[in-house]
Amino acid sequence: MNQQVGMCKDGIDTPALCLDANALERNIDRMAAFFGARPAALRPHCKTHKCPTIAWMQLRAGAIGVTCAKLDEAEAMARAGIRDILIANQIIGPKIPRLMGLATYSDVMVAVDDIANAEDLSAAACAAGVTLRVLLEVEVGMGRCGVPAGEPALALARRVAALPGLRFEGIMGYEGHAVMIPDGAERRAAAEEAMGILTGAADLLRRDGLPVGIVSGGGTGTYDVTGSYPGVTEVQAGSYATMDGRYHSVGLEFEQALTVVARVISAPHDDLAVVDAGLKTMTTEFGLPEVVHPEGWALQSLSEEHGKLKREGGDPLRPGDVVAFVPSHGCTTINLHDAYVVTRGDRVVAEWPIAARGGVR
Amino acid sequence: MNQQVGMCKDGIDTPALCLDANALERNIDRMAAFFGARPAALRPHCKTHKCPTIAWMQLRAGAIGVTCAKLDEAEAMARAGIRDILIANQIIGPKIPRLMGLATYSDVMVAVDDIANAEDLSAAACAAGVTLRVLLEVEVGMGRCGVPAGEPALALARRVAALPGLRFEGIMGYEGHAVMIPDGAERRAAAEEAMGILTGAADLLRRDGLPVGIVSGGGTGTYDVTGSYPGVTEVQAGSYATMDGRYHSVGLEFEQALTVVARVISAPHDDLAVVDAGLKTMTTEFGLPEVVHPEGWALQSLSEEHGKLKREGGDPLRPGDVVAFVPSHGCTTINLHDAYVVTRGDRVVAEWPIAARGGVR
Repeated sequence: MNQQVGMCKDGIDTPALCLDANALERNIDRMAAFFGARPAALRPHCKTHKCPTIAWMQLRAGAIGVTCAKLDEAEAMARAGIRDILIANQIIGPKIPRLMGLATYSDVMVAVDDIANAEDLSAAACAAGVTLRVLLEVEVGMGRCGVPAGEPALALARRVAALPGLRFEGIMGYEGHAVMIPDGAERRAAAEEAMGILTGAADLLRRDGLPVGIVSGGGTGTYDVTGSYPGVTEVQAGSYATMDGRYHSVGLEFEQALTVVARVISAPHDDLAVVDAGLKTMTTEFGLPEVVHPEGWALQSLSEEHGKLKREGGDPLRPGDVVAFVPSHGCTTINLHDAYVVTRGDRVVAEWPIAARGGVR
Repeated sequence: MNQQVGMCKDGIDTPALCLDANALERNIDRMAAFFGARPAALRPHCKTHKCPTIAWMQLRAGAIGVTCAKLDEAEAMARAGIRDILIANQIIGPKIPRLMGLATYSDVMVAVDDIANAEDLSAAACAAGVTLRVLLEVEVGMGRCGVPAGEPALALARRVAALPGLRFEGIMGYEGHAVMIPDGAERRAAAEEAMGILTGAADLLRRDGLPVGIVSGGGTGTYDVTGSYPGVTEVQAGSYATMDGRYHSVGLEFEQALTVVARVISAPHDDLAVVDAGLKTMTTEFGLPEVVHPEGWALQSLSEEHGKLKREGGDPLRPGDVVAFVPSHGCTTINLHDAYVVTRGDRVVAEWPIAARGGVR
């Protein structure tokens, strides 16, 4: 923590993960307005921002709770006083005692797609004297976790719902294969097909008398489809708050609140500048980050600790000059940093700890 | 920190970054034996392991000091009592006061390749009442930082050596373009060409009367070339201690001490298993990590929080089963974790904090 609140953004130590508070707030308000006009509710995913400060801004804007990927994240949110938490994954093996601990001071909910795991959770909940909420995860086309819709989902749901110590709350499915489709119409069609599978499974379970209160899906790329789809009750979108280059490329209307600010440490000649931000500062699985300041320079490559920029018409850079990037993938880039340097205009107004950074367990 | 020292490795919470202490010690001893028989010394790079515990093991085996990429790393090593530290990069702008603070309680040395930066360092050192050691960084073929060998290097060295508050110690150059060349003979040729440029520059400066005590270069892929090259006094190799899949692929004799241990969280059918380790646990810029346990399974893809494995002849996996991977790139993978789970055989013997994790400033 070497940043100084009140200082000009250009004076901060680099590299730094900067968050534009005005853009963040507008993104949160825009999403809240969307859900304020619909039956479905927003349960924003915290795996992107990993920051209780932002989670509380989302809750105050109307979100009904939060979604987490990992128990570590859920514990971080619970420590910040957030109670209604969905861990949208299976909790297995040595984590089960930790989950029961969390269940004693928060209202946590997990995904299940396997009867042996559900039985383990049931036994642990009974032993701990807690009631654990569970959602059945249904496979909706992504080909990852989840039980197939139809008879397999029904058979598993019946068994899970009968287990002591668990409260069967409903079902979830993630259309991760759809959220990044560049063409808006194709993206909508893929998301609608997935939500058709999910809500169809919900109807099947209800006809069997199972209490399906929650039908949860959705990501930032498809929130407008899933959030309007009849029968979907909750949407797990998360990246909309900070945004990144990847989601910007599919034409979403949210603003880019996240930048990485770096500094030139070497400029061997007028067409080359080397900055102090590399692969330990910005991730590349969705492509190279984009230079947004200064104009006329492009990122050529990232090595571990360095970024090489080539000149494309801008003025030559000198050691000490500031360069700003938009990360291509916010989720993994944020996970590299301990805190956001929060700015309004040109001024640093706060540092917000990324409390769940590195929380992969 | 949820691991328990003394427990069986199969019982640890996952995903976890595991370090085999026996393999680590054999790697450190092997490298120490190489340098024990030669005039050049080892100054191991800490940007890979980021761990003072390992740095001290290297120092006790004969290393003359440590190399760091960032001031954050150097501060972490100095806090652990290590004094002789090379930061093999340029320190610019808002970091200069921090560097002067570090120089008051350690024997730190930095790279310079720009006269304005050297003058800033000189002025700050004089104001702080410290003497800062500097190495001139020479470009040896990588096309990144550094001043060209020959007249530009000589002209800059003269000016730097004359600045008050700085002590001119010598030169450095990194043959990063050579360390990963798969063919051993080609790798050797590229490294020898680079060290020819570096030692040639050293000779030129010496003929001018400049005190070139240190000539520093080298990485794990080329340590045997640079460590034997006449005139090279120090080698900066770092990855040899832990190793990774990338360095293993170029045929180095060091052992794989580093693994990521994960657990199956979902197994929708016999040919698919999903583990709890994704891009926030293992990096992919040098390719997908390799499954080393169990046999007959291969990693198909990593998303943020999940790895999808496909069966290639092994027994079907069930939720809770343990899977081990060799990271393709140790440096960036280690940087995602807060601690090593240190094992001997099947037992956890320690947790070592990765003190400089995330230290990108």
